Amino acid sequence: MKKHNFSAGPCILPETVLQKASEAVVNFNNDDLSLLEISHRSAPFVEVIEKVRALALEHLSLTDKGYKALFLQGGASSQFLMTAYNFLHKKAAYLNTGTWSSKAIKEAKLFGELEEVASSADKNFSYIPKNYTVSKDVDYFHCTSNNTIYGTQMKEFPEVEVPLICDMSSDIFSRQLDFSKFDLIYAGAQKNMGPAGATLVVIKEELLDKICREVPSMLNYKLHVERDSMFNTPPVFSVYVSMLTLEWLKDLGGINFIEGVNQKKAALLYKEIDRNPLFNGVVATEDRSIMNATFTLTNDQLKERFDSLWQEARINGLDGHRSVGGYRASMYNALPLYSVQALVDVMQELERKA
Amino acid sequence: MKKHNFSAGPCILPETVLQKASEAVVNFNNDDLSLLEISHRSAPFVEVIEKVRALALEHLSLTDKGYKALFLQGGASSQFLMTAYNFLHKKAAYLNTGTWSSKAIKEAKLFGELEEVASSADKNFSYIPKNYTVSKDVDYFHCTSNNTIYGTQMKEFPEVEVPLICDMSSDIFSRQLDFSKFDLIYAGAQKNMGPAGATLVVIKEELLDKICREVPSMLNYKLHVERDSMFNTPPVFSVYVSMLTLEWLKDLGGINFIEGVNQKKAALLYKEIDRNPLFNGVVATEDRSIMNATFTLTNDQLKERFDSLWQEARINGLDGHRSVGGYRASMYNALPLYSVQALVDVMQELERKA
Repeated sequence: MKKHNFSAGPCILPETVLQKASEAVVNFNNDDLSLLEISHRSAPFVEVIEKVRALALEHLSLTDKGYKALFLQGGASSQFLMTAYNFLHKKAAYLNTGTWSSKAIKEAKLFGELEEVASSADKNFSYIPKNYTVSKDVDYFHCTSNNTIYGTQMKEFPEVEVPLICDMSSDIFSRQLDFSKFDLIYAGAQKNMGPAGATLVVIKEELLDKICREVPSMLNYKLHVERDSMFNTPPVFSVYVSMLTLEWLKDLGGINFIEGVNQKKAALLYKEIDRNPLFNGVVATEDRSIMNATFTLTNDQLKERFDSLWQEARINGLDGHRSVGGYRASMYNALPLYSVQALVDVMQELERKA
Repeated sequence: MKKHNFSAGPCILPETVLQKASEAVVNFNNDDLSLLEISHRSAPFVEVIEKVRALALEHLSLTDKGYKALFLQGGASSQFLMTAYNFLHKKAAYLNTGTWSSKAIKEAKLFGELEEVASSADKNFSYIPKNYTVSKDVDYFHCTSNNTIYGTQMKEFPEVEVPLICDMSSDIFSRQLDFSKFDLIYAGAQKNMGPAGATLVVIKEELLDKICREVPSMLNYKLHVERDSMFNTPPVFSVYVSMLTLEWLKDLGGINFIEGVNQKKAALLYKEIDRNPLFNGVVATEDRSIMNATFTLTNDQLKERFDSLWQEARINGLDGHRSVGGYRASMYNALPLYSVQALVDVMQELERKA
């Protein structure tokens, strides 16, 4: 029996996806060859990458709305520099909500001036700043929708008159938003989509006209769009598993369905965190992420006992990030409700035994 | 039964490697979790990446010689720009032996002046230029050891007084060289190493002192070395399969052993190309690659019959690249001698029936 996997990323993927991926590694498409050893220009793989690109847009309700989906390499960390390399001409505005925003800001500073419109660094990123202003004269506004490390999530996005760029690495495909508000969305695959090694970029074609300097080929969004995400050999396996996961999500009922499940899971855990006198939530209640819940013990002396209990219950990946401490339960799309129940049971068991 | 896989890349991998990789996708390390869903900071994966980094240096006889091995993302195409971004201060020298050299040259021109020391473009890259000079005042000299598309291979490397950078994507680990002559070697995984999505970089630590401008984090070799190739989430699956392949190679006897096998395979095929009146080799005899053999039919009217024959013999991936035409047989490390024999049999069958 599999463990209850609360790992923050790489993280849990659907069982059926893992089974199909495992089979493709020895025999793909009943072609007596492994997926890993066929040409990326062969018809079966071209079909895979076209399908996953279409599925990504379909899930986000962006089909035929002037957007393109790309599967690139290098993770969100490469997008930090690519967004700025392509679009930061003079000045850009960034919202700083944690480690990943801060890294995006650091990389962008190499390419132009930065305006940090607001930051929650003053309280160790335990809330999402509100009531900030984004000037009309910046090249774009950049934000991070969900902060994996701290467990905060943007519930609303500002109305801006400049291109809106968003790192959705840790909550893409988990909740319904008006995605047509965004000009560029990027997300490392290794949360709700697939294995590490692929990065989804969804870009509004109009934005490509704003590329403001000569950009090396591999960092140039326009080139990747022109080459249908096949400028060079794509990360074949990660792209294939992402396709399987997006098919799985479609069969379930898409974002509308999974958002309901995600809200139930989050509600169950946060209710216990709030009820159980042995635990405290880390972040502002209204900014709590439905993907990553961070919490601490009210009494550190119970740590050893709690750690034993959840490990005995076959729970994996509950340690908090070193910048926050305590615990973090990541509840991505593929995590079943019964895994969250297993965690709640352990929290209640600790209370009974304490 | 599997096909005889002559695909140019992604390409054949050892059967035992594919079996183990397939198992790891459902249950890695007997830990009741998939390799794809564990943290890249977890002990089992840190062990994998440390092992493959050590194995890469060991195979190249570079252990304890001041080199570091990295597994990055973005393929050789990203190395084209990274090498120049980091090390092209004023002027660099490039040898142009084909499509990939030309692409490397194109990217480097964004960062400084280029001296093309020699080129075989005059004869569609069907030979390796010799007797060129590399000035002492350039920042580095860049070359491509094996030209996958044309089927040529550098048998010797020039003695240069500047850093020597080499793209070995399509012949790394296939033949013995004095690798300590090189300051930076890079190679996309998807030929002799593993699945697409990982790129091996072997860099002499001294070279890191020559980084000549402020480089974004993800493109900065020094940062990747400092972070032990774990600055951001690595392409976990591709790194793992690369480890399995380098273990397989070690068990066989390393480069010394496989080079013997590769020479036998190449000799068998080239002998038939030279003997059989229906076929012509494409490139200069002394520059023939032991990895990729390119050849054409002397009579194009036999094309349909030949294509049927090799497809009936369960041969895969024999079509030549569109820039060369004809046929290309890629004989990477994992291709067995009997697959080459199967191809030779088909060539002889065509002769009998013609």
